[in-house]
Amino acid sequence: MDSMHVTPGPVDLWLEERHADFFACRYRVRRVLFSGRSEYQHVDVVDTVGHGRMLLNDGLVMISERDEAIYHEMIAHVPLCVHPDPRRVLVVGGGDGGTVREVLRHPTVEHVRLVEIDGMVIEACREHIPRTAASLDDPRVTVTVDDGVRFVASTDERYDVVIVDSSDPFGPATPLFDGAFYDNVRRILGDDGIVVAQAESAFYEENAQRSLVAVVHERFAHTHVYNYTNLTYPGGMWSFVWGSVTRHPLRDFDAARAEALGDGLYWYTPQVHRAAFALPAFQRRALEGLVGD
Amino acid sequence: MDSMHVTPGPVDLWLEERHADFFACRYRVRRVLFSGRSEYQHVDVVDTVGHGRMLLNDGLVMISERDEAIYHEMIAHVPLCVHPDPRRVLVVGGGDGGTVREVLRHPTVEHVRLVEIDGMVIEACREHIPRTAASLDDPRVTVTVDDGVRFVASTDERYDVVIVDSSDPFGPATPLFDGAFYDNVRRILGDDGIVVAQAESAFYEENAQRSLVAVVHERFAHTHVYNYTNLTYPGGMWSFVWGSVTRHPLRDFDAARAEALGDGLYWYTPQVHRAAFALPAFQRRALEGLVGD
Repeated sequence: MDSMHVTPGPVDLWLEERHADFFACRYRVRRVLFSGRSEYQHVDVVDTVGHGRMLLNDGLVMISERDEAIYHEMIAHVPLCVHPDPRRVLVVGGGDGGTVREVLRHPTVEHVRLVEIDGMVIEACREHIPRTAASLDDPRVTVTVDDGVRFVASTDERYDVVIVDSSDPFGPATPLFDGAFYDNVRRILGDDGIVVAQAESAFYEENAQRSLVAVVHERFAHTHVYNYTNLTYPGGMWSFVWGSVTRHPLRDFDAARAEALGDGLYWYTPQVHRAAFALPAFQRRALEGLVGD
Repeated sequence: MDSMHVTPGPVDLWLEERHADFFACRYRVRRVLFSGRSEYQHVDVVDTVGHGRMLLNDGLVMISERDEAIYHEMIAHVPLCVHPDPRRVLVVGGGDGGTVREVLRHPTVEHVRLVEIDGMVIEACREHIPRTAASLDDPRVTVTVDDGVRFVASTDERYDVVIVDSSDPFGPATPLFDGAFYDNVRRILGDDGIVVAQAESAFYEENAQRSLVAVVHERFAHTHVYNYTNLTYPGGMWSFVWGSVTRHPLRDFDAARAEALGDGLYWYTPQVHRAAFALPAFQRRALEGLVGD
C-alpha cells in the first residue's frame, strides 16, 4: 500500500453541485453545520473555505456569505428605488432573510411580510447565517410560514412592491412561475405596484426564463428583465423579471434615492441600476416582444 | 463485488479546473482531441458535452465554443467602435483566432497582426477549433509566432488599436502585465490609439486587476475598466482594461458603427457597450483613483 500513501490530515471535504449532466461546481467545505429534511426539501448549511457559509436546498446553492449581497441588493433596490413611496413590501420565499435586510434600508418602508413555505430554511439561517437572517427580527417585519401561492390567493392586504425570491422552477417553488400566482400578485399590487422575481439563467435556462417573462408580460404593461452576476450560480449571469402596470424601471428611477443608500452596499449603484437592463444580444432576441425598451 | 455494480457504458470522463484550493469547475468530456506540451505550456483541446470544444492552457479553460463569442466581441468591438478610423490592429496573444475574427468585422480594418508566443496554440486551434482559427487565413491577417513583449519592444510599426488577449499573470503571459510592456504599447500606439487588455476577475483576482490597471493608468490619461460575463471563467464576471491618451470609451463611442455590426453578434450591442463600464460598487472602490468616469 506504499504507493497509496498520502500526507495525514483531516478529511478533504468538498460539496458538488451538478447542472444537467455536463457541468458541476465544487466547493471546499470546512464542516457541515446543519442538515435536515423538511416536508418540502433537503436543507443544508455548510461552512466553506472560500465562500463563507452556504445555504443549499435540495443540494443546490441558494446563497453564500461571500456573494449573497449581490443578489439581495439587486432584487430589492431596483424596485424600491423606482416606486415613488414604498411602504408595504411582500417577500415571497427568501427565508434566509437577505432580501428583507436590503428592503429595510429604505426609510419609507413601514411593513415587510416574508412568506416562506419552509420553516426549516428560516430556522437553519437564524441559527447559522445571522448575516442575512438577523433582519427577520426587525420590528417592521412579520414572518409567515405559509405557501406563497396560497397566501397571495387569500389575502386582503395590498402591497406596494412584491418580491418573489424563489428557488428554481422545480420542487416547492414550481407554482411561483405560473399565471395563477401572478393573477393574484397583480390583484394585491394594484396599478401602482411593482413585482420583481428571480428569473433564472439566460444561458442555461432560456426556456424557463422566457416562459416566466411571458407570464408577467400577459399581466403587466411594463415588463423588463435585468441582469446581475454572482459567484455561485452557474454561468455567472442571472436575471430578474420586472412587472408593473404603470412604473417603468428606468424612466421612473429615482437615482437620488439610490445614491442615498450610501457606501455600505457591495454591488448596487445608480449606474449599475441602469446598466442591468442592457441585455446581451442573444438574450434580447430570446425575449423579443416580451420586454419593453 | 455485487454492491459495486454499475450500469455498463463508456468511460465517464470529466475535466476539472481548480481555483485556489477551494473551488473547482468540472466539465463532462466526450473526448480529448489534442494534448501537447510546448516550450511554454501544456495545450489541450477537448470536446465537451455541454460547451462544445474547449482550449485549455496548463489545464485552465481559455475558450469554449459555447461562449467564446462574448469575450471576443467585448475585447474587439469596444475599442474598434471608439477609434474614429481603425485601420491597423495588433493582437498580442489570442492564438485561437477569435479576437481576430471579431476585428475583421470592421470594414475600415486593413491589417491585423497576431503575435502569439506559442505556435502550438495556433496549430491546435487551426486543426480543432476552426470556428475561431479560420479567421487567421484572412488576407488582411499576418500571423507572427513571437514573444509579444519582444515584438512591441523592437517593432517600428504603428497601430491604431492594440488588443492584449492574454492568459493569466502567471506562466508565459506574466510580462504582459508589466510596465515595460506598456511603455512600448504606448510608443507604437501614439496619442490617438487605444489599448485594451484582459484584466482578470474583480472577485477572485482583485490584486492582479488593480496592479494591471495601475500600470495602464501611469501611461494613459484615459484609463477605464469594463466587464462582461461568460460561462467558463470562475465567478462569471471578468474585466478588460482600457487605455488611451485621447480617446474616451463612452464620449467618443460611435454607436452607429456598433449598430451596423448587425444581427450576427451574440453579446455586443450599443447598450451593452455603455453598460459594461458601470462597475459594481465594490469594484469601483477597489479601483478608486485609477479609472475615470
